[in-house]
Amino acid sequence: MLISNLDTPAVICDLDVMERNLAAMATHCRNLGIPLRAHTKSHKIPELAHRQMTSGAIGIACQKLGDAEVMVAAGLKDILIPYNIVGPLKVERLVRLARRATMTVAVDSEDTARGISEGARAAGVDVRMIIELDTGARRCGVQSPTEALDLARKVVRMPGIDFRGVMTYPSRPEAKPFLDETIRLFRNDGIPTTMISGGGTGHEAISKELGCTETRSGSYIWEGLTRVHSSADLGPERCPVRVICTVVSTPAPGRIIIDGGMKTFASYPPKPYGHCIEHPEIKIYGMSVEHGHVDTSESPHRFRVGERVTIIPLHQEMCLNLHDELVGVRNDRVEVIWPVAGRGKVR
Amino acid sequence: MLISNLDTPAVICDLDVMERNLAAMATHCRNLGIPLRAHTKSHKIPELAHRQMTSGAIGIACQKLGDAEVMVAAGLKDILIPYNIVGPLKVERLVRLARRATMTVAVDSEDTARGISEGARAAGVDVRMIIELDTGARRCGVQSPTEALDLARKVVRMPGIDFRGVMTYPSRPEAKPFLDETIRLFRNDGIPTTMISGGGTGHEAISKELGCTETRSGSYIWEGLTRVHSSADLGPERCPVRVICTVVSTPAPGRIIIDGGMKTFASYPPKPYGHCIEHPEIKIYGMSVEHGHVDTSESPHRFRVGERVTIIPLHQEMCLNLHDELVGVRNDRVEVIWPVAGRGKVR
Repeated sequence: MLISNLDTPAVICDLDVMERNLAAMATHCRNLGIPLRAHTKSHKIPELAHRQMTSGAIGIACQKLGDAEVMVAAGLKDILIPYNIVGPLKVERLVRLARRATMTVAVDSEDTARGISEGARAAGVDVRMIIELDTGARRCGVQSPTEALDLARKVVRMPGIDFRGVMTYPSRPEAKPFLDETIRLFRNDGIPTTMISGGGTGHEAISKELGCTETRSGSYIWEGLTRVHSSADLGPERCPVRVICTVVSTPAPGRIIIDGGMKTFASYPPKPYGHCIEHPEIKIYGMSVEHGHVDTSESPHRFRVGERVTIIPLHQEMCLNLHDELVGVRNDRVEVIWPVAGRGKVR
Repeated sequence: MLISNLDTPAVICDLDVMERNLAAMATHCRNLGIPLRAHTKSHKIPELAHRQMTSGAIGIACQKLGDAEVMVAAGLKDILIPYNIVGPLKVERLVRLARRATMTVAVDSEDTARGISEGARAAGVDVRMIIELDTGARRCGVQSPTEALDLARKVVRMPGIDFRGVMTYPSRPEAKPFLDETIRLFRNDGIPTTMISGGGTGHEAISKELGCTETRSGSYIWEGLTRVHSSADLGPERCPVRVICTVVSTPAPGRIIIDGGMKTFASYPPKPYGHCIEHPEIKIYGMSVEHGHVDTSESPHRFRVGERVTIIPLHQEMCLNLHDELVGVRNDRVEVIWPVAGRGKVR
């Protein structure tokens, strides 16, 4: 099937670009000597997780338990959930996964750790556990090395828990004193630190400098080695995810309307939104729920109803999360259609 | 099942509140003497469309063809798609629907109208058609009454087309000269204007003043009679859609982290985001993809890991569009679980 035969809006992935991104990150981490754990939240597609493993990743990360269930069902075997798993319903699901794959979870409180311990003990399985450190991102995580030590001392004694070490996000140079002191305290206390997980696409070298045993990266599959935040940095040679839209209206000079809006692209500041491959001079200046409002005043091209434009969305992960399928293309042909199997798995 | 047994994040709908919203809009339109066409893009749930019909709507509107397919499959019989349907793949689907339901589509160009005419003629069916007028919203629509007349003169002669009139969005007082002149030109020319469709929740009275034959409203089901844009206006007595989240981390004084972020709530400015029913004084000040970052510094409550909070999202429609199910609740019990059947139907 030709790309031109797809109906629109269609979310496509240029396989050549994606494969270059996968290879570049694998080489980058190999050269640095830092093992890569691929974060699959960026795509939620099991076959892409397998491709990341084939490219040299040591395991994957899933942000939610529902994502991990999808990945384990697809045969992935080493999964980190860098997220507090809270409540007996979720713990039961986690324990079920731990029978089928190597599951590691991050916690930042005794309550969360104890809930997982009780579930694991009741089921007679072990769950690997690490402690999340808030080294400055101000999200989850214990606030100091002594707090980490206090929690670790409790967790290492909990039944059903195989304590492994620590994690942080993102890896930043400023995190070094916190990490170093935590590891020193742990070692003095005989607490294992076989896993020190850093993260963030583009932060691989810093993870290495911090002494991490692995670095979690996800968005590199869509955006190349470095996350790009301004539309000026986006380019077809780096970003494989694109949305093909159709011009549905040319109501007035300088304005066209395309058939994708917030429910196709995801709403995400800043504006202008996205990068048009065929006509980089046009800008999506506004969006309704199902309409994209495009300023064509800088373009010499005279747009016609029915014409197609190919847009690189600003936030590929949020865009893809709206859709049931990702169409893998090479040159002008459809090569594969992947269900976005983890989409909607918020629990 | 009790609400408290649902795992989180869970998107729930307070049925009492929703039913009040449905009844209030039905009464409002009946009192005004303006027929209501319920826009289902707000929910994408067929049973809710049927409830809107039972409450007195004369038909429904769907923003995309894929939504209309879901609704026709569920037995809805009178559907307006106020959207240019462009391209033979979509026209074929439209024509299939026209065999099973009364389908009306809006167009703003000869190209779009001709494509639909050719498909309808080939299939031997008639599709109802109206012309979209841009009365100031600067999205789709012809730009002047004479442009409307020029297009209508062409469309009325097209085979397979049952020409009906015009539409605009939203209904605003400023639209009156444009609408009046268009209808005058049409009548002078013998062109039918049996359908004059206005729209926008909260604009029902203006639709009546403009002489519309119907008014399209959608978000009233979630937000009461008037759309509300600031979190200060949101309240549990008006807004039935809520997201139940669990506190997964209490890392530092004044900050908790909940298990819903951009993939649960949809990213939508402005901040702070959402309204917490139990603790209105707390504010979601930031979101990661799967974490909600909540400022609790103004709250006397001491939050614990595992505790639940109920949040009214800022943009119910975008939030619901991320989820596979909506849980209808009454008092403390689950009464129904609806699949969000139209979610992801962007084509």
